[in-house]
Amino acid sequence: MGSIPSPGTRIFYEVVLLNFCSNCGSPVETKIPPGDHLPRFVCNSCNTVHYKNPLLVLGCVPEWQDKILLCRRAIEPRLGFWTVPAGFMENGETMQQAAARECQEEALATVEVTSLLAVVNVTRANQVHVMFRAKLLEPKFAPGIESLEVRLYTEAEIPWSELAFPSGEYTLRQFFADRAAGRDDHHFTELKSRGFAAVAE
Amino acid sequence: MGSIPSPGTRIFYEVVLLNFCSNCGSPVETKIPPGDHLPRFVCNSCNTVHYKNPLLVLGCVPEWQDKILLCRRAIEPRLGFWTVPAGFMENGETMQQAAARECQEEALATVEVTSLLAVVNVTRANQVHVMFRAKLLEPKFAPGIESLEVRLYTEAEIPWSELAFPSGEYTLRQFFADRAAGRDDHHFTELKSRGFAAVAE
Repeated sequence: MGSIPSPGTRIFYEVVLLNFCSNCGSPVETKIPPGDHLPRFVCNSCNTVHYKNPLLVLGCVPEWQDKILLCRRAIEPRLGFWTVPAGFMENGETMQQAAARECQEEALATVEVTSLLAVVNVTRANQVHVMFRAKLLEPKFAPGIESLEVRLYTEAEIPWSELAFPSGEYTLRQFFADRAAGRDDHHFTELKSRGFAAVAE
Repeated sequence: MGSIPSPGTRIFYEVVLLNFCSNCGSPVETKIPPGDHLPRFVCNSCNTVHYKNPLLVLGCVPEWQDKILLCRRAIEPRLGFWTVPAGFMENGETMQQAAARECQEEALATVEVTSLLAVVNVTRANQVHVMFRAKLLEPKFAPGIESLEVRLYTEAEIPWSELAFPSGEYTLRQFFADRAAGRDDHHFTELKSRGFAAVAE
């Protein structure tokens, strides 16, 4: 019997073993339901089909004057590495609300979420990371429970080799390229490779 | 004991009752895990936390010359009503691949997915609908298993009162407004109200 994991342990490459039906408690089987084309977890007792679909991770690049805000992670995976504020979107919120909430939780900072910046399809982890630009409303921030440290960085100061996740690096590179060009574009990419493509909730 | 539902029965306002732990089969309880701030389904036996997060629905507006392609639904909900090709994103695919696949399945039509058109946060159903523009590669299409009929419509012919879902109506209105203005913008909205905000897988 394990202990209840902290939210930070719910990582990108989470593998949920579906052994039993969450509806009736009977064992489930992997098979293609009639009319479907993909294998699903199906309960042979109550016939419930249990789907598994991609998860949304929402984040933002909070801007204050010529600097942006990063968080140093206090939790695994990638403890001690730097990330943009991001995490799993919750039921009942919009994408923009999720991005603002994650910034509040991880950096105790209040932002106005503005334009769409990056959509990273992390197909190997069954996740989509959606990153927005954001304005820090005042230069007030502090480490939330999932962060060791929170600070403002100029572009020249960004600790590229100490970034936690490839989706965050992609996001920051697009952000600075667009800022230099005076653009507010959005960008799509796919991350297939192994490595740390993880963000904690 | 019910029959295995067809994919079309997996609708927006799906309520999954989580009674048993999918890992060990024990009953689950709703409580806030330590370090978390929201109630989750937690197994008191193996301590697995079962999260529920928003689902992604991907779709597109397939364009051929001055017309766009719509499908008339062969399945509930909203059987007989018209919709843009759309459905639940699957694991292992990108947003654009999901949008193209749904068009292939529902309209037997091959498209090139182009720019982002609409993001509809359907918060009351815990879904995010992401709609792209798309180019029909040739004027070849036919009803897939989930469609009664597939046809090309000019803007003047769109059956606005017979559209299946509000997210589809929002998407089409943005599409035509942008086309008239010569723009390729993307648009965000939130759908909170009751009514049919449903798309089948």
